[in-house]
Order: sequence, then C-alpha cells, then structure tokens
Amino acid sequence: MKDIYITDLAAFDEGKLFNSFFLVLAKQQRATKTNKPYLNLILGDKTGQLEGRVWDLGDPRIAKDFERGDIVKVRGSASRFDDRLQLKVDQLRKAAPAEVDKTDLLPSTTYDVAALWRGLESSVQSLTNPDLKRLLNAVLADPAIAQAYREAPAARQLHHAWLGGLLEHVVSLLGLAEKVAAHYPQLDRDLLVTGVVLHDLGKIRELAWETGFDYTVEGVLLGHIQMGVDLVEKTIAALPDFPPRLRTLVLHMILSHHGKLEFGSPKLPMIPEALVLNFIDDLDAKMQAMKSEFEKSAREGKAPDELTGKVWALDNRQLLNTKAWLEGEK
Amino acid sequence: MKDIYITDLAAFDEGKLFNSFFLVLAKQQRATKTNKPYLNLILGDKTGQLEGRVWDLGDPRIAKDFERGDIVKVRGSASRFDDRLQLKVDQLRKAAPAEVDKTDLLPSTTYDVAALWRGLESSVQSLTNPDLKRLLNAVLADPAIAQAYREAPAARQLHHAWLGGLLEHVVSLLGLAEKVAAHYPQLDRDLLVTGVVLHDLGKIRELAWETGFDYTVEGVLLGHIQMGVDLVEKTIAALPDFPPRLRTLVLHMILSHHGKLEFGSPKLPMIPEALVLNFIDDLDAKMQAMKSEFEKSAREGKAPDELTGKVWALDNRQLLNTKAWLEGEK
Amino acid sequence: MKDIYITDLAAFDEGKLFNSFFLVLAKQQRATKTNKPYLNLILGDKTGQLEGRVWDLGDPRIAKDFERGDIVKVRGSASRFDDRLQLKVDQLRKAAPAEVDKTDLLPSTTYDVAALWRGLESSVQSLTNPDLKRLLNAVLADPAIAQAYREAPAARQLHHAWLGGLLEHVVSLLGLAEKVAAHYPQLDRDLLVTGVVLHDLGKIRELAWETGFDYTVEGVLLGHIQMGVDLVEKTIAALPDFPPRLRTLVLHMILSHHGKLEFGSPKLPMIPEALVLNFIDDLDAKMQAMKSEFEKSAREGKAPDELTGKVWALDNRQLLNTKAWLEGEK
Amino acid sequence: MKDIYITDLAAFDEGKLFNSFFLVLAKQQRATKTNKPYLNLILGDKTGQLEGRVWDLGDPRIAKDFERGDIVKVRGSASRFDDRLQLKVDQLRKAAPAEVDKTDLLPSTTYDVAALWRGLESSVQSLTNPDLKRLLNAVLADPAIAQAYREAPAARQLHHAWLGGLLEHVVSLLGLAEKVAAHYPQLDRDLLVTGVVLHDLGKIRELAWETGFDYTVEGVLLGHIQMGVDLVEKTIAALPDFPPRLRTLVLHMILSHHGKLEFGSPKLPMIPEALVLNFIDDLDAKMQAMKSEFEKSAREGKAPDELTGKVWALDNRQLLNTKAWLEGEK
Amino acid sequence: MKDIYITDLAAFDEGKLFNSFFLVLAKQQRATKTNKPYLNLILGDKTGQLEGRVWDLGDPRIAKDFERGDIVKVRGSASRFDDRLQLKVDQLRKAAPAEVDKTDLLPSTTYDVAALWRGLESSVQSLTNPDLKRLLNAVLADPAIAQAYREAPAARQLHHAWLGGLLEHVVSLLGLAEKVAAHYPQLDRDLLVTGVVLHDLGKIRELAWETGFDYTVEGVLLGHIQMGVDLVEKTIAALPDFPPRLRTLVLHMILSHHGKLEFGSPKLPMIPEALVLNFIDDLDAKMQAMKSEFEKSAREGKAPDELTGKVWALDNRQLLNTKAWLEGEK
Amino acid sequence: MKDIYITDLAAFDEGKLFNSFFLVLAKQQRATKTNKPYLNLILGDKTGQLEGRVWDLGDPRIAKDFERGDIVKVRGSASRFDDRLQLKVDQLRKAAPAEVDKTDLLPSTTYDVAALWRGLESSVQSLTNPDLKRLLNAVLADPAIAQAYREAPAARQLHHAWLGGLLEHVVSLLGLAEKVAAHYPQLDRDLLVTGVVLHDLGKIRELAWETGFDYTVEGVLLGHIQMGVDLVEKTIAALPDFPPRLRTLVLHMILSHHGKLEFGSPKLPMIPEALVLNFIDDLDAKMQAMKSEFEKSAREGKAPDELTGKVWALDNRQLLNTKAWLEGEK
Repeated sequence: MKDIYITDLAAFDEGKLFNSFFLVLAKQQRATKTNKPYLNLILGDKTGQLEGRVWDLGDPRIAKDFERGDIVKVRGSASRFDDRLQLKVDQLRKAAPAEVDKTDLLPSTTYDVAALWRGLESSVQSLTNPDLKRLLNAVLADPAIAQAYREAPAARQLHHAWLGGLLEHVVSLLGLAEKVAAHYPQLDRDLLVTGVVLHDLGKIRELAWETGFDYTVEGVLLGHIQMGVDLVEKTIAALPDFPPRLRTLVLHMILSHHGKLEFGSPKLPMIPEALVLNFIDDLDAKMQAMKSEFEKSAREGKAPDELTGKVWALDNRQLLNTKAWLEGEK
Repeated sequence: MKDIYITDLAAFDEGKLFNSFFLVLAKQQRATKTNKPYLNLILGDKTGQLEGRVWDLGDPRIAKDFERGDIVKVRGSASRFDDRLQLKVDQLRKAAPAEVDKTDLLPSTTYDVAALWRGLESSVQSLTNPDLKRLLNAVLADPAIAQAYREAPAARQLHHAWLGGLLEHVVSLLGLAEKVAAHYPQLDRDLLVTGVVLHDLGKIRELAWETGFDYTVEGVLLGHIQMGVDLVEKTIAALPDFPPRLRTLVLHMILSHHGKLEFGSPKLPMIPEALVLNFIDDLDAKMQAMKSEFEKSAREGKAPDELTGKVWALDNRQLLNTKAWLEGEK
Repeated sequence: MKDIYITDLAAFDEGKLFNSFFLVLAKQQRATKTNKPYLNLILGDKTGQLEGRVWDLGDPRIAKDFERGDIVKVRGSASRFDDRLQLKVDQLRKAAPAEVDKTDLLPSTTYDVAALWRGLESSVQSLTNPDLKRLLNAVLADPAIAQAYREAPAARQLHHAWLGGLLEHVVSLLGLAEKVAAHYPQLDRDLLVTGVVLHDLGKIRELAWETGFDYTVEGVLLGHIQMGVDLVEKTIAALPDFPPRLRTLVLHMILSHHGKLEFGSPKLPMIPEALVLNFIDDLDAKMQAMKSEFEKSAREGKAPDELTGKVWALDNRQLLNTKAWLEGEK
Repeated sequence: MKDIYITDLAAFDEGKLFNSFFLVLAKQQRATKTNKPYLNLILGDKTGQLEGRVWDLGDPRIAKDFERGDIVKVRGSASRFDDRLQLKVDQLRKAAPAEVDKTDLLPSTTYDVAALWRGLESSVQSLTNPDLKRLLNAVLADPAIAQAYREAPAARQLHHAWLGGLLEHVVSLLGLAEKVAAHYPQLDRDLLVTGVVLHDLGKIRELAWETGFDYTVEGVLLGHIQMGVDLVEKTIAALPDFPPRLRTLVLHMILSHHGKLEFGSPKLPMIPEALVLNFIDDLDAKMQAMKSEFEKSAREGKAPDELTGKVWALDNRQLLNTKAWLEGEK
Repeated sequence: MKDIYITDLAAFDEGKLFNSFFLVLAKQQRATKTNKPYLNLILGDKTGQLEGRVWDLGDPRIAKDFERGDIVKVRGSASRFDDRLQLKVDQLRKAAPAEVDKTDLLPSTTYDVAALWRGLESSVQSLTNPDLKRLLNAVLADPAIAQAYREAPAARQLHHAWLGGLLEHVVSLLGLAEKVAAHYPQLDRDLLVTGVVLHDLGKIRELAWETGFDYTVEGVLLGHIQMGVDLVEKTIAALPDFPPRLRTLVLHMILSHHGKLEFGSPKLPMIPEALVLNFIDDLDAKMQAMKSEFEKSAREGKAPDELTGKVWALDNRQLLNTKAWLEGEK
Repeated sequence: MKDIYITDLAAFDEGKLFNSFFLVLAKQQRATKTNKPYLNLILGDKTGQLEGRVWDLGDPRIAKDFERGDIVKVRGSASRFDDRLQLKVDQLRKAAPAEVDKTDLLPSTTYDVAALWRGLESSVQSLTNPDLKRLLNAVLADPAIAQAYREAPAARQLHHAWLGGLLEHVVSLLGLAEKVAAHYPQLDRDLLVTGVVLHDLGKIRELAWETGFDYTVEGVLLGHIQMGVDLVEKTIAALPDFPPRLRTLVLHMILSHHGKLEFGSPKLPMIPEALVLNFIDDLDAKMQAMKSEFEKSAREGKAPDELTGKVWALDNRQLLNTKAWLEGEK
C-alpha cells in the first residue's frame, strides 16, 4: 500500500528521504544549460503530479526497463525549486501489480464501488420487461464488461473524471430516472432504466485509464456512442427472439442521448424515454460539474460566498454556491 | 350553460335550427361575387371555430352592438359548403356574462382547477424558509393575481395552451421539483419550489385570454420574465427585512429560467437551483408537447404506431409513441 | 407492360376510355358538398401522379381488396376540372406482380442497371488489399443486399431520388475516387474505394421504395449511417481474422462521411481517405442536384440562359447553366 | 496628493527611496525557493500596477491592518528584476480617505466631470414631455444615484473603462441623439433622450470601482439591464399618475438597448426610438474602442500608419487609423 | 398622362368601360376548364397590379406584337370574381414611350428627384479633399451613371424599393453623415461623404427597373458591391495621380459597408469612417423599413396603436408606432 | 551560398565560431537586469529562427545601417541558455542581394519552380476557348505578375505557407481539375482551368514575403479576392471584344471560390465550374494541411501511428496517418 502521497510532500522537510509508488506519466532525457544530461520524469498519484529528476543515468539503482504508464517504486527526496516541488530520485524500480492498488494512483470515486454495483444490479433485477431484463443481464454478465464498467471514468475531464465515475454517474441517474418515471405515467420505466444503464457503455472502449485518463485511437475515430451501440447490438444478436422494435428503441436511446447533432448524437430523441434520458444525463453531469467547481474554488482559497471563475464546461458562466452565499449574509 | 359545441355540428342534419353561445373571434362586412353584401363572422368555442354568415343586414333580430371578443347567443343552422361547415345566422344577440361559462368558449385544462390550486398552496405551506414562505403567501394573497394564476394559459401555442395551463404546468413542476430536490441534497429545496411557483408569474400580464389567446402589447414589449420580476420585486419591497441576497437569488431564478440568452433569458443559470428549474421547466413543456402531438396525430387519423409529422416546436423532429409502437409488434 | 403514362393523358380527348396500371399512393372515402360519397384515389406512375374518383362504391367491377401501395389495373377516362386532370374510374382490380414492371411506376435511373452493377463489381475485383476485397465480396454476395443495392434511390428528394439512384451515385463516385486517388499518392486507394461502396449501404434499410419513396420508422430512429455500420460490422464479424485497425478505419469512413456533426455524422473525417470521401460524395450530389435543377427549369419553360429559382437544397442560391448562358451570347 | 506615479518609476535610479500612495490590488504571503517568507503585494494607481515585496514580516513599520482594496502609503525603492520593475517596501501604513484623491489611483475620464454633469442636466431640463422630465429629475435627484453616476466606469474592460466613463459615454450619446432626432422627424426626441440617460443606469449597481473595476455578485446574477429597470420602475412607482404606456416604452428602451437576445437584451427594439438607441450606443462604444486601440498601438511603439493587432472586442478585426495612414503617404 | 390607376378601379361600377396605360408584367396563353383558350395578362401601374383577360384571341383590335415589359394602352371593363377584381380587355395596343410617364407605372419616390440630385451635388461640391472631389465629380459626370443614379430603386423589396429610392436613401445618409462627422472630430468627413455617395453605386448595375424591379443575371453573379468597386476603380484609373492609399480606403468603404461577412461584405470595416458608414446605412434602411411597415399596417386597416405583424426584414420582430400608441392613451 | 542553417546549430559545440547569412526578423535595443544595454535580434532562415545578441554596441565590426527585413552576414557562436540556443554576434554587416539566395532564408517549395511553371504554361496553351486563352496569356505575360506568381506563398500559415506555395497549389489543382472535368462532361473544362489559374491571383498583392510572410495593409483592407478581380478586370478591359458574359463568369469564379459568405466570398458558387473550383481548392488545401500535420507530428517525436494533436485549421479535429497506423498493426 502507498502511504505517502504527492500532496503530503509539501509539508516535508526538504531533503528528507522517503519511499513511495508512482505512476510514470512521462519520461524524457534532457540536458541542463551546462549540458549535463538527466532523466526527467512526470510522476503521478491520485492526489496530483510532480516532476522528478534522475541525475546519474548510469546508477545501477535506477532501473532501465520502465516506460510511460508503468508503476514504479521510488526512493528520493523533495525540494522546492522556483516555488515548485521537485523530486530528486535516488532509486527507482518497476513495481509489481500486486504491490500497489491502482486506485491509489489515479483519482477515484469517493463512493463504495461494491455498493454502487449492487445498486446497478438491483435496478436491473427490478425490470418487469423480460426482454430488457435479459438484455441487461447478458451485458453485465460479461466479466470484461463488468470489470471495465466498475472502473471506467465517465469522462476525461468534464464531469465524473475519476475511476468509478461512470458507475457513480449511472447509479445517480438510476435514482433520478425512477423519480421521473414515477412522475410521468406515460413513460415506459423499463425502457428508461435500460437506456440509463447502456447509454455510456461505449465509454469502456472509448477511454483508457491505465496511465492517466485518455481516449483510445479507436475511441477518437468511432466514439462511445457507436462503440456502445456495437456492444449492445452484438449482445442482442445473441439473444433468441429479441423483439425487433424493442431493439430499435434501445439503440435509438443510445444514439440520441446527447440530444443534439452538434453534440455528436446522429439522431435527436424522438420518443419520450429518449427525451428524458437526454435531460437527466445532462442535468446530472452539470450538477456534478457545479459541485466539483465549488470544491475547486474552495481548494484555490476562494471564500465560500465568492463567484467561481468562468467555467468552460458550462458555457463560460460563473457559478455561485447558494448555501454558502446565503450563509454569508447571516 | 352551453349544450351544443362546434364539433357536435358535423353530425347535425343540414338546415336544422339550433341555439348556442359563441365567442366572436372576427367580424367583417363582405360582398359576394354578385355584390350582395353580408356579414362574415368567425365564431369559436372550446372545441374549435366556424364561419358564420348573416345575409340580411337590416334584420332587427340581428344585434348591431357586438364586437370582436364579445360572447353572443346565436340561432341558426349549419350546412356544408365546399366540404366545410358554415353557419347561417338567423338571430344574434350579445350574451350577459352570467349566461355562459367562459371555460366553455376556450380550451381549458382537463384537471380540476380547485384541486390544482390546493396542490400549489400546500407546496407553499410546506416551505420552512420563513422569508420565502411569506413571499409566496404575499404573492398569492393578491386576489387579482390569484384569479389570473388560476385562469392563464402557459403559452399561446406551444405547450399547455389552454385555460388553467399555467397552473397545471406549475403543479406538475412542483411534483418534479420535490423529486429532484430529494435526489440532490445540495439543493435548497425551498428556493427551488419558490422558483417553480414564480418563474412564469409574468405570463398573467404577458398573455390575454379573454378573446382567444394572445399577447398584450405590454407583453410583447417587456416579456413575461421582466413582468414577473417586477411583480415579485414589488411584493418583496413591501415585506419588511427581506434578506437582500435571498431577493437576488429569487430574481435570478426568474431571469435565468429560459436557460439561454437566445431564448430570452438575459442571464444563464448560475446557481444549482436555477439550473434545475431550467431543466425541469423545459422537460415538462416538452413532455406535454409530445403528449399533445400524439393526441393530435390520433385525431388526424394516423395509426398509433406511425411517426408524427415534423414538430416545429421540437426542432422539426418527428415523434414516435413508444407504447403504441411496441404494442403494434405484438 | 404499361403503355399509357400519366403525362400522356394531357393530350387525350376528354372522356375517351383507356386502360393502364398505376401505383396506389393514397385511398380515402369522401363525400361531395351534397353529401354524395365517393372513393378518392391518388394514382402514380414514373411520370407523375393523378387524382382518381370512383363514384359507384357498390359497382362489382371495382375491387374491394386493394390498399395504399398496391399496383392496380384501371379502366376509365380523364377530364379536366379546375385546370387539373381527373380520372373517372370505371373498373379497377389488383394487378399481379408479373403484369407490370415496377420501374414503370416509380422514377428510375436512366442508366442500365446491369452495366452499373458490372462497374461496381469490377471496382471490387480490382482491389489489391485482400481483407477489403473479401469484405466487399461478402457484403455484395448477400442476395437481399445485392437486390436492394440495385433498386434503392439515393435519397427521398434531394439528389438521385429515383430507383437505381444509389447505385448510379456510387458508380459515379467510384470513377471520381479513382481519379482523386491517382492524384494524391498518399491515399490508400483500396480503402477509399471501400468507403465509396459502403458509405450509403444503410440506405437500403433507411428508405422504402415500394410505394413511393419514404423513410422506414427504423430509418428515422437510427439513420442510414448507423444502419450501414451495423451491416458492415456483422459482415466483418463473420470474416475470420479481419484486422481490427482496418475494421476501425472502414467504420470511421462510414461514420464520418457527412463531414460535419450537424449533418448527422457523429465524427469528423480524421484520415485522408475519409476527407476525400466526404468531398467527392458532397460534390457528386451537388453536381447531380444542379443538373436536375437545370432540367426542371427547362421543363417549367424557362429560357436556357435564365437563372433558376432559389434552390433549397443548395442553400437557397440560384443557379445558372454555363453552357446555355454562353450560348445565348453568340 | 500623490506626486509619484508608477509610470514615473521607470526613470528612477534603482534603489532611490521615495513615498507614494497606492491601491492594494492583491496581498499574499509567499516563500522563496530557499523558503524565506515574504509578503507579496500588487499595488496600483491610475497609470498602471507594480509588484511590491515586504521582506521583514515582523518589522513594526509595516502595518498589519490593511487588506485588498485599501489605500496605503508606502516608503520604498524600485529595482529591476528580470526586466520588470519591483518595489522593495520599507514602510507601509493605511492611508486616510482624505489623504489622497481616488481618481489618482484608478484610470479616470480626461473630461471635466462637472462639465459633463452640467451637459447631462441641461439635456434633462430641455425636455418638453413633463412626465419624462419629472422621471429624469427624480432619478438624478437621488444623491446616491447622482454620485455613482458621476463616478462609474461604463464597462470593466471593453470601452470607457475608467472613472467617469459612464457619464462621458452618456453625454456623447446625448449629443448624437439630438442630431439623429433632428434628422428623423418621426422620432420622439424626448423619449430618445430619456432612453440615453437611463439605458446604462444599472451599471452603477452592476459594477464596483472601489478597488479596481469589477462586477458585484448581484451584478453578475442580475445584470445592469434588470438593475436599471428596477431603479426606474421604483422611481416611476413613486411618481403620481405616470402614464402606463409611457412607462412601458421607457422600460422597453432599457430592456432592448443591446439589440440582440444573444447580447443579453431579452427583447429586440420594436419602436423607432429603441432602434436608434441601440445603434448610437453601439456606435459610440465602438468609436471609443477604436480610439483607445489607436492610443494603445501608439503606446506599444507601433508606427501610426501600421494596422493594430486583432481587436477582440471588435470581432478580432485589425484597425487602421485613417488620418495617420493617409499622412504617411504624403 | 395616365388618369385611371388600378386602385381607382375598386370604386368603379362593374362593366363600365375605361381606357388606361399599364405595364405588362406577365403574358400567358391559357384555357378554361371547358377548354376555351384565352390570353392571361398581369398588368401593373405604380399603385398595384391586376389580372386581365383577352377572350377573343383573333380580334384585330388586340395587338399581337407586345411582350412582357412593354407598356400598353388598354380599353376594357373591370368586374369582381371571387372577391378579386379582373379586367376584361376589349382593345389593346403597344404604347409609344412618349405617351406615358414611366413613373406612373412603377412605385416612385415621393420626393422631388431634381431637388434630391441638387442635394447630392451640393455635398460633392462641399468636399475640401481635391482627390475625393474629382473622383465624385468624375463618377457623376458620366451621363449614363447619373441617369441611372436618379432612377434606381435602393432594393428590390426590403427598403426604398421604388424609383428614385437609391438617391433618396443616399441623400438621407448624407444628412446623417454630416451630423455624425460633426460629432466625432476624429472622422475624415470627406472620406465618409465619399463612401456614402459611392457605397451602393453598383446597384445601378445589379438591379433592373424597366419591368418591375428585378436583379440582372450579372447582378446575381457578381453583386452590387463588386460592381460598384469596378465602376469606381475604372474611374480612379482614369484620374491622373490619384493617391494609392486613398484609393484603397475608398474601395474598402464600399467593400465593407454591409458590416459582416455573412451579409456579403468580404471585409469588416477597419477604419472609423467605414464603421460609421455601415451603421448609418443600416440605421437609415431600418428606419425607412419601420416607416413603410407602419404605413402598410394602416393600409391593411390596423388601428394606429396596434402592433404590426412580424416583420421578416427586421428579424421577425413586431413593431409599434410610438406616437400613435402614446396618442391612444390620451 | 549559405552553408550553415539554424537547425544545424543544435549539433554545434558551444562557443565554436561560424559565419552565415540570416534574415533580420526583428531588431530591438534592450537592457539586462543589471541595466547593461544590448541589441536583441531575431534572425531567421528557411529552417527556423534564433535569438541573437550584440553585447558591444559600439564595436565597429557591427554595422549600424541594417533594419528589420534586411539580409545580414553574421559571425558569431551559439550557446544554450535555459534550453534554448542563443547566438552571440561578434561581427555583422548587411549582405548584398547577390550574396545569398532568398530561398535559403524563407521556407520554400520542395518542387522545381521552373517545372511547376512549365506545368502551368502547358495548361494555358491547352485551352481551346480563344478568349480564355488570350486572357491567361495576357495575365502571365506581365513580368511582374509572373515573377510574383512564381514566388508567392499560398497563405501566411494555414497551407502551402512557403515560397512557391501558390504555384505548387495551383499546379496540383490543375491536375485535379483535368480529372474532374473528364468525369463530368457537363463542365466547361476551359472555364474551370481558367478559374484555377486565376482564383488566388490576388495573393501576389495580399501577401508580402520579403521579410517573413505577412499581409500587406492593402491586402488586409481589400483581400485577395477583390485584388485578383481587379487584376483580371484590368487585363480583360485591355483585350478587344472580350465577351461580356464570359467576363462575368470568370469574375464569378474568383468571387465565389471560398464557397461561403462567412469565408469571405461575397457570392456562393452558382455555376457548376465555380462549385467544382470551390471543392477542389478546399480539398487540396486540406490534403496539404494533413500532410504537413503528419510531418510536424513526426518532427515532434510522435510515433507514426499516434493521433496528431487537435488541428486548429481543420476544426480542431485530430488526424491519423492511415498508412502508418495500418503498418503499426502488422
């Protein structure tokens, strides 16, 4: 287990030695102005990232066999240079997978993943439409899918951008979907739930989260909407006698869930359930983005009743924390 | 009370005499090709409208003192001309307000207005924030406002375009708002409820519904957002010690509820409650528009599992009735 | 075979009896102003459409068993009413498929379909990339696909909106693609040819052309891009060891061929071949639309050197026929 | 009075001691690379801003009781570091309001504010419509409004962004409005003048100019259009028998003066006076922005006949100073 | 001279014979339902247009040699058919140019063209920049240009769409330009005046006004901006030693006067004079469009204090006549 | 001839003396932190740019008479400062034009300009339309035009931004135009070829390439479309009896070649040849931009099968090199 995190180092004495695990985010050989060569590393864990330098390239205590994306065990000391912390690396070796929990190295949901998963499964088991139920069961029965569904972030940057973020977002949506379905009796609740569970399934292929969060090349070329439709289509094809019209509606929910062509949905929502899915998906993402923004504002030392800066992901608007602002009046 | 409606006349024998009340939607003198003058009327009731003709302009049984917007009692007979029904008017007089219920003459909510109103009031009484509660109580205590709030349509054409439509829309939103507030604990539920009750208040000034649904001149020049802000500001100004920050947030909810500058909101939603209000308002309007569209499609004789035509109010997309379409597969 | 077409009837004597085959585009019972019931039909063939009326509903010579979409044999006479031709129907019966060639009843390519098909096949056989070649061979080996590919229009209205239009458009693109591939050596010619053959494959599912040209419900909900990707994915899945990266590129070509998100492509072209496909597809459609517009202008009696009206499908611009205009100067 | 300005310091000998007043724009404790703590200040006056450092945090000659936004008296010396001037602060104390003129600390109009104000008042007194005249008199009779109207900038950054900028802009508009009203006899000159005086009134609430130019939180949430309408509505409500239609038109002028929904006006100009107000307001702002841009270009050492850089506030176009460019040809 | 206008005919007895001159706007042979051939004409004068019919095609009193665009003398009588007036033509011959004033046949400015022209000339003579003065004198010295400048409409439909409309618009702009130049001393008044005189010069080539108002083919292909630049460039090329920079600025004023790329200006205004020209041109066009709209509203029988319909040329907004509306309150 | 280029210096020993020619891109006097004055130069050649410093301003071996835009011969040595190379200048003098080839100092086409020019000329000589042929011959017969046409870049930054880039782009388009003209028999091939040769002619006036690539002031104010039309119009005016309609079409091709108003074309393409010109011009520019982007990606050390970064000139999309990516799979 990892016990020293990057945010801890700010409080360290300069030069004090310590050991810890990091993810290698970048690795490059460079030279100083006086032409002294060194190895420059960007090391990360779930709390942030840090520049590290190896000054003696031939030192046998520095492994040669590691690359960008590997987890390494490092011994060294931190010091401040130009107001930024820098790590002097004395020893470095590749770590074995078992030595460290990947969730220590990347930001990760604050919820209990097992509990979230049980929430997802209980929604699936509550379906009364037998075709939709066997579809969802078939999708989640695939161990590779289930594992990825538990781990994937919901996005690279905009909202829920942490391990487990996809599952956290879907479970929040399931709760919201139940409430909206109860409010509008014309809705087919089972179809809506199915749409919620499957709408972002393609993200498990579009995104990679081994070495920081990034898009796969296939993800950039095809997109999670198409990748999700493909996964679902292949599952349906393997289910005997799945009703063709129901298949069309399930695929339509995935295709249209971004709500506008210019957001990458090739079709607008044309059935009530697709309309609701688009609204609650967008609302939940924005509510989470607002929450993250207030937390970031606090981290950056703003008073709780100040406006945030302009938020790119929310059309450059500024945001205000209602409760903190009202509190500030009392 | 009115007992014969325009939609009933299609089943009538041509030439059979009847009496009924109508709203005068237009009144114009014209002449036939052979230069015979006649009085042309457009008469309406809650089921539709009809062309009527008075052929003997000097007949003493035809009143002279009525205008567009008046309610009249008519005696005459219907016949078909060029596949359209036309009314030959034999007698006509202005009706007294007591003779007929205005809700018979304009389309009107199918819900019980008294029950809707009780729903609204019970939401108001459930508030725990004393300032918001006294604000809403003060607004609804004004009898002119309360009366208009019960009667106003929510729009001229797009959604809930019937008497009581505003109240029906708000009560639906209150139910939805409770659910969303329960889902996101960071929301100030009382502020959200207040926003729901007040967001379209200005429509009681922007719209006129005496003689068909139309905009007032003041409504066109100022808009319901500004008109609602004005009503609320004046109410707040009369409440002692209303907290200034809370006032700002309430006004911000009204100003921003259309969600985009190009939809007439001069500000984007910047607090979580304003974001939610914008989403549920838009969702409820679109859910209602979809429902109306399916009903219209049925009225026009389409099969229940056909697509509707392109719907202007929903970005020209076509719609499909999920349940009917799945039903059609069985 | 059909020997009298709708455009021929304008030259007929009023009241002269004739026999011919038509497609039933609409069928409705109506009544005259004097309440006389009749059967109203819209009948079509490849040259246009015509209103027909059956006055004696009980006449045994009028079949009861036909519907919208059926081909019928009619005996009757034409006369002019209000400057429009109308058909008085005396006898009517459903036709057997063998009695008439469907291409007589819907507009149809002026090219020889067999020759177009040979052009397509020779392009496929010319591929040197074995994987792409077996992919295209597998797609076209499916008899249902091959049959539909020969028949489908390329669009409902905008360009190549006739039977065989899809094939005609693809064969024109194949010629253009060869030329562009010869010009830019960096292009993978086989991938480009594959993209041309497959880009609109989904139209065989999106469109229906039995009874006029229309979209299927599935087509409206999913779109031809998704439907084409699905057909290709399933074909690839059945081919052993198809290279995954090549699969991604083929799908990307289909997904991105509309060139912009707002035109329904969920991805922009990101490889040179996809860029070229988007350009030549758009260019060929617009060249065809211009040609059709000049023909329409001529049919409407405009002088060859006049501007056309504003063309909706070309951003409302007017068009000018270069050659005719220059000719007009001599 | 302040006699040494930031722009003067560039010509100073390094290390020479001086005293002056500054506005504290930022105050933060920091540490050097070698962990030596210091107090970092951003100090401003009307000519620019400067970084200052206090190295001995415990020095009793450095006051503890000052904050961002305070005016301070400083004793210190300037030196150049990395090509930028830096101030070493030896003594610092809060200044009393009477010691320094705020206009020395923030950029300020180059016109005589008293003369501008007389110009505004003489426009008001020239009105012949008694209702508009008493409205404007009532607004300007409020001492808090009058004081703020004299001081407020017209914007934070784009145009007239200096103390007195609002008044300067309005007085320029009054001159222009008279000319346009004389040109178009259909205009109601008094209504136009009233619109000019009131259109940006809300800026006295939307902006804060005590400590640099910034938006208030209320300003960000409500905007100056709504804030101005509110001030005017409350003034009108206190005037007996103000004609309702005239009130509507005055409010419409304020609401619509940005000319487009996407610029934050919830209504488009619908009367000739509102159209003119929108045009002259926009023109005057752009003429001023061009002038400022030419001055900035000169300050940055460009030749007078060069193009400016791309100007963000003018759709990224470059600008050319007509007179200077033609001069350059002679 | 023409003494009976189309608007006069509404008051005529049906069948009463009269003689008058008309412009032939369309000429087509047609047949009735009963196949009786007739000649259908659309005849126009400055007050409107009217359908005319010639029933006896062989009648020697009906000339054969006239075409669309000719002026004809007609003898006939009017009668009402389906509520529209129709002219029965008994005699018809081509008129000689001298028989009728073309301004009787097309709508035409209500101002005195000679006075407008003197206004234009006096502006030109007031210039102090000798180069700009000789440029304008050279342009207006061309008799074909001068004649067309006096006659041309300013647009086909949107504003000043009548004979002399271009000149009327320019003279109004000259007055406005003087006022704005007096207000902003930084403006080069002579350059602005030059821009006003030349900005729409190309309309004399873009538009045709012999037979109704229409675009020429060259006008559609090149546009009045390019056509005006061409006329001015050729004039400048013939002037010895015209300063090249001044030439560039004059051309830039013409090129940029629409103010936005999407309005057909290939360049944005980059000098103060071009900015002002764009604003006053747009303002004057919109003021005129508002005035026309109020007149049209009155003609259509709306009360003076009603809103107009939605005006396409003004972004679909409704308009209100300030003075009439305030009057309505008294 | 120049034998040491800026990219060579990275491999040099620090401090080793060398001589070379450079273009002076900027020249400014500055001072160090310790107030030591020095002359700062930005020097460029076709491989890049470099900062140079002259420390002894009075040294007689440093010429005083050079300016931005001059070519200079420099003697000095390079060293690394803060990871960037810097040049210490010991001697500097203005170079004579004959000493160095300008193409060594600016990036330049990799094709043989003489061969490209022969390609252009042979296209011109192949025309069969005598009017178009004499037009192109007349344009290219002007030695100043011909010289500039050989040298000009096609753009400042986006595509073909190197000496000879315009000619290289045009010759590529000529090849493509022949192919497209062969494919669509309705095209007037000679008109298309003419459009290709002339469409960007104005760039020889819009751009300057003496001292780096930049826009001229006239170019910014008028644009290459207008400047090209002007050059062509003047050439046509000098040709006896050039057919007016043909002139209109040639000008229309130039005016409309950007394809959209918002891209600076004041007219949309309205003839088939203009449509094709717009498509192939855009396609060739984008194909070249893709190629440059792949080269840049390689230069920056990306693996050949990685995606590029987001490319601003291609709507911020990422790009993938098809061949390299497929290669990476083998």
